[in-house]
This record gives sequence, C-alpha cells and structure tokens, in this order.
Amino acid sequence: MADATTTLEALKELVRRFVAERAWEPYHSPKNLSMGLAAEAAELMEHFLWVDSEASRAVVRDPEKLAAVADELADVACHVLNLSNVLGIDLSDAIRAKMARNALKYPAGQSAGGSRQ
Amino acid sequence: MADATTTLEALKELVRRFVAERAWEPYHSPKNLSMGLAAEAAELMEHFLWVDSEASRAVVRDPEKLAAVADELADVACHVLNLSNVLGIDLSDAIRAKMARNALKYPAGQSAGGSRQ
Amino acid sequence: MADATTTLEALKELVRRFVAERAWEPYHSPKNLSMGLAAEAAELMEHFLWVDSEASRAVVRDPEKLAAVADELADVACHVLNLSNVLGIDLSDAIRAKMARNALKYPAGQSAGGSRQ
Amino acid sequence: MADATTTLEALKELVRRFVAERAWEPYHSPKNLSMGLAAEAAELMEHFLWVDSEASRAVVRDPEKLAAVADELADVACHVLNLSNVLGIDLSDAIRAKMARNALKYPAGQSAGGSRQ
Repeated sequence: MADATTTLEALKELVRRFVAERAWEPYHSPKNLSMGLAAEAAELMEHFLWVDSEASRAVVRDPEKLAAVADELADVACHVLNLSNVLGIDLSDAIRAKMARNALKYPAGQSAGGSRQ
Repeated sequence: MADATTTLEALKELVRRFVAERAWEPYHSPKNLSMGLAAEAAELMEHFLWVDSEASRAVVRDPEKLAAVADELADVACHVLNLSNVLGIDLSDAIRAKMARNALKYPAGQSAGGSRQ
Repeated sequence: MADATTTLEALKELVRRFVAERAWEPYHSPKNLSMGLAAEAAELMEHFLWVDSEASRAVVRDPEKLAAVADELADVACHVLNLSNVLGIDLSDAIRAKMARNALKYPAGQSAGGSRQ
Repeated sequence: MADATTTLEALKELVRRFVAERAWEPYHSPKNLSMGLAAEAAELMEHFLWVDSEASRAVVRDPEKLAAVADELADVACHVLNLSNVLGIDLSDAIRAKMARNALKYPAGQSAGGSRQ
C-alpha cells in the first residue's frame, strides 16, 4: 500500500513539477481547473450510469473495469492536488476541518433515517 | 503544512472511521459516491461561474472566499478518499501510474499549441 | 398541456427577452453558460443521490418533491434555450439530427444487452 | 428555423417513441436520467475548458466546432425531454413558472453588481 507512506505533499509536488515542465500554469486558473475537475468527475460517474447502486459494488471484482475506474479517480485526484497547489490550500487541514464540522452536523451513533453525507 | 507529514492512508482511515461510526456503508455504493463526487465538484465550480479565468486567481487574496473554496475542495477530496476505500484502490499508485501515462501523452518541453490538460 | 402548443422559439424568445432586460449578455458567454448548465444539472441530480434507481420513480407521486424537481429541470432547460440563443442553434434541427444518428447507432428492435443511452 | 414551428410535445413524442422502440424504459429511472443529463452537460462544457470566456464566443464562426457543440447540446436536450416524459412534467409550464419567480428575484432594469444568473 503506497498510500501508507505517501504524503499529500509528495503527490502535490509531483503534480506541481508535471505542470511546470509543460509550462501549463497560464491555463490552470482556479476557474479552468474547477471545470476540468467537474468534467473528470462526470467521466468517473459515467462508469456507473446504467447499473443499480448495489450492482455497482461488483466493480471491485472486475480487474479491467476497476483499473478503468482507478484511472478516472486518479484524474479527479490530480485536479484536486493541482487546485490545492494553485490556491495554496493545505488539503489535510481542510479535510480535517471539514470532517470536524461534519461530525457536529451528523453526530455518530444516531439512528439514521435522516440525511447521510 | 500538514500536507508535508500526512499520508493518504491517514486521511483514508479518518474517512473510513467517520463512515463506520454512522453506519453509512449501505448508502455508499460506488454509483452513489460517484454521483456525490460529481455534485460536490459542481458546487466547487459554482464559485467561479461568473468570473473570468484570470480574475478567478484573485480568490487566493480573499480569505473568506478562499475558506469557502477550501471547504468545497475538502468535500470533493473526502469523496475521492471514500471511493478509494470502497473500491480498495491505492490512490498514490493510481496517481503515479496516471501521471506516467500522461508524461508519455504530453512530453515535457514541447511547444504548447496542442492540448493541455 | 402547454407543451402541446408551445414552440421552442416562443420559449427561446422568453429567455432572450429576460436576459436583455437585465443586460446580462456580457456574462453569458458559451463558456460561462456551459458551466452554469452543468451546475444546474448537478443540482437536479442531487435530488436522486441517495435513493435507488427504482425508488427514484416514486417522485412522480410526491407533489412537493416533483415540484422541486420540475423547478430544477426548468433551470436546466433555460440554460439550454439560452445557449441555443447565444450560439444561434436551431435546437429542433439539432435534436432531430442527433436522434437520426442515434437511430443508426442503436437500431430499434434489437435485443438489449448492449449499451442503452 | 424549425424552432419557430416545432412544439415541445412534438419533440417529447419523438423521444418517447425512440425509447419505446428500444424498450429502454426499465433503465430510464429519474435517478439514471439525471446522471446521464449531468454527464452530457459535462461533455458540452469540455468544449470550452481551455478557452477564455470571451474567446468562447468565437465558436459561432467555426462551423465544425459549432456542429460538435450543437450535437452535445442536443444530447442534453434529449435528456431533458426524456425526464419530462418520465416524470410527467409540462416543461413549458415549468419554464414559465421558473422565469416568473426569477423575474421577482432579479428585477429588470436594476444596476447589475449583484448576482446574474
């Protein structure tokens, strides 16, 4: 599991260098990157368009489909990292802060029934 | 910079526990999470709807707006981490593999003019 | 059924006048409208985020929810009409041409199994 | 201009028949169609990803690009018509009602500065 030892900064640096080596910074405004992110998220979603919710879990047991989905998820993640770079956002901090707020909004251990995430 | 020391696995574990404590797993199929991810990405994009591409860079100097954008970006990131958990995807590996393919597709140091992701 | 007697041009004219009376044309570039359209489509989709595919059909029997969904669908439609105006596209022609191509791509009467748009 | 004489019902009937001839109704739940609509909207948006807002207006003078955009816009429109059919929504009524509400929310003739849909 590379995730166990890879920091967010290591991945952000990977993306930062990739963009710099191609001199793409002028195109990568927050507006454009947010559009690109939404477009990539839609492509990921298309993989699950015509299957039922439960059936979509079967992708885990289909190596070819799983690889295609992982590829789209990586595209989305690269846009998130790129946006963090461009905006100077500490993503770990932002995630922890968000989850702390969500923990207040959706207290643990309550009966569901209400909204969920 | 928490990003310098936070591993992806630490954040994945944070999300995994949050979901488990609320027993939300039955709702979090890949289909539903991909929809949620696309919806969050659209909310992030809405912050940049009516500004020009260049003008959108000014968000960096507007603490209130930047905090709102960081909050939406964290929402998107949580869905990415959640999907990685549900699908058993090593996100660092997927990102590195994707960027290696992109490096072949868009060689560094070439004159632009072509597409730029 | 107003749809039985309302032409697309009547609705396009309604949108055209609404935009002109507010002098919004400078903001309504194809780029911005395409972003707005995607954002509205995501809001529509959010209504169906946590229900199963079959269960989502029940919205038809829930007047309050149906009204909210119709409202979002109208938002999406207004963006489509607005884009048609801005781009000078005859939408009826474009739809008929597209469906003619789809009819060749997905011949009628074939057993399913394949893709279904 | 076919839009001047084509009613929404005529186009809705075209879509209804197309779907029926392929027996696609079981797949076309509101949930799935809303996902398909969001995915098509994202594909339309991708045409304007790397151009500036003003530059995106030039698509009107590029017949090939305009045809590609019209094709994507038709895809979006077909999903809107299909959803109207499935949900039993009178789209003209919904659009007129929405615009009446928007006229109150954004009174005409006011100086801009505020939000502009």
